Amino acid sequence: MARRRQLYEGKAKIIFEGPEPGTVVQYFKDDATAFNNQKKGTITGKGVLNNRISEYLMTRLGQIGVPTHFIRRLNMREQLVRQAEIIPLEVIVRNLAAGSFAQRFKMEEGTPLPRSIIEFCYKNDDLGDPMVAEEHITAFGWASPPEIDDIVQQTIRINDFLTGLFLGIGIRLVDFKIEFGRVWDNDVMRIILADEISPDSCRLWDADTNEKMDKDRFRRDMGEVEEAYQEVARRLGVMPENPSDFKGPKLVH
Amino acid sequence: MARRRQLYEGKAKIIFEGPEPGTVVQYFKDDATAFNNQKKGTITGKGVLNNRISEYLMTRLGQIGVPTHFIRRLNMREQLVRQAEIIPLEVIVRNLAAGSFAQRFKMEEGTPLPRSIIEFCYKNDDLGDPMVAEEHITAFGWASPPEIDDIVQQTIRINDFLTGLFLGIGIRLVDFKIEFGRVWDNDVMRIILADEISPDSCRLWDADTNEKMDKDRFRRDMGEVEEAYQEVARRLGVMPENPSDFKGPKLVH
Ligand SMILES: Nc1ncnc2c1ncn2[C@@H]1O[C@H](COP(=O)(O)OP(=O)(O)O)[C@@H](O)[C@H]1O
Ligand SMILES: Nc1ncnc2c1ncn2[C@@H]1O[C@H](COP(=O)(O)OP(=O)(O)O)[C@@H](O)[C@H]1O
Ligand SMILES: [Mg+2]
Ligand SMILES: [Mg+2]
Repeated sequence: MARRRQLYEGKAKIIFEGPEPGTVVQYFKDDATAFNNQKKGTITGKGVLNNRISEYLMTRLGQIGVPTHFIRRLNMREQLVRQAEIIPLEVIVRNLAAGSFAQRFKMEEGTPLPRSIIEFCYKNDDLGDPMVAEEHITAFGWASPPEIDDIVQQTIRINDFLTGLFLGIGIRLVDFKIEFGRVWDNDVMRIILADEISPDSCRLWDADTNEKMDKDRFRRDMGEVEEAYQEVARRLGVMPENPSDFKGPKLVH
Repeated sequence: MARRRQLYEGKAKIIFEGPEPGTVVQYFKDDATAFNNQKKGTITGKGVLNNRISEYLMTRLGQIGVPTHFIRRLNMREQLVRQAEIIPLEVIVRNLAAGSFAQRFKMEEGTPLPRSIIEFCYKNDDLGDPMVAEEHITAFGWASPPEIDDIVQQTIRINDFLTGLFLGIGIRLVDFKIEFGRVWDNDVMRIILADEISPDSCRLWDADTNEKMDKDRFRRDMGEVEEAYQEVARRLGVMPENPSDFKGPKLVH
């Protein structure tokens, strides 16, 4: 395989130039960070599992008509996606109070919300991803009002679908973070779901035991982090058959 | 004067039962607090001046058709206002970056914004008045979507008018905080401007020198706090003639 130019290295993934114009390759690392990079570590096999999990969820979302960047998985750690102009917003959906939201409103974790709440944070590590309102988004030009409307509509669909899908496998979708980007099809701009959906970006609790099956196990040093990611992959039916596969050496470009 | 029942003591004002149903008396204290009550102090004469300044600004706003709670000033430190069901939101208008906003977006204080930005904070000392979006406001039922629309429309008018009024007396209205409340007129609910507008709740910079003429002088220990409030009152034409008046003893109920 030809050596590909690296476009960006993030906290959990590396973005490489894709084989055709308008595409990029997402390489999923095992690196994990939390609390705006203050805590760093590794979750062995995470990249392999998140690659599969995100592939699965994006594919299913595509099938119900939610446009996504996903094209196809290339190998254990890489997927080909449409290159998008990322909208610098973390779109957060909260179904139950947890994490920073529970702290902010002094609510106990797991408290049901009156209804699902969509929050926006300005994606900017240097500023600590501050929460913003539509006012800031439109004033600073990060997205236009119709774009925000589109994002909110897609986000509601994504939440409804994923909530059901996870419930079907005994998991409560407590909250999650997604990103959107702009693409152009014959000069028509469209907004598509980008980045990833995985236990890195979702809070997933076992529906019976409330056991955490997501990155909070890493954030809070709860142990059995790898096992939690594996269990999510297993329930979704995307666990690689050969366990040694996903602990294997990382690909080098 | 009959002894009046105290309904609420806040950080800067005391609310007493009014002489007629549907009214309350706002008593303006000299107490000053900052940083969510961590810093406390006194600004001598502040209550007298804020009583006058808020009277003046609310009266002028009423004249352009912005409904307010103001009825009439009773004495040096008290004004009669319509009793309102306060909407638990601090509505903040930002014309230039300053204070927590400048910090949040790492902007230099005084940087003009692409356009004026309206922010909402949930008025709750216990939680530190966290910033919220319309999502939280409607989900938690603090205000309905049409109420938020009404508040935003009134807020834009208030900002336009006050920006002009202050500019006319050589002052830049950098940002300010207002509160709204619900009142009922013959079973029809209306939203009116409540609380106060004063150098406690506005950032006011001299248009020529950028000198601060507001509570930031207290927050940041800049000195000449009393003088700043007096200068604002003087430029608005509401400085009490007899300086000894507003340093006099506080009224007792
Ligand atoms: N389809 C896409 N096109 C271009 N960039 C993308 C796409 N999907 C995700 N990205 C961006 O690639 C990066 C993924 O790497 P990640 O490790 O998550 O980075 P970060 O630390 O910035 O969150 C993110 O910055 C994300 O916004
Ligand atoms: N018209 C009104 N009717 C009822 N309450 C009011 C009215 N105007 C202001 N208030 C409330 O009265 C209190 C004023 O006192 P203040 O010292 O500012 O209190 P706080 O410390 O809560 O801000 C505030 O809580 C404010 O919301
Ligand atoms: Mg990321
Ligand atoms: Mg107050």
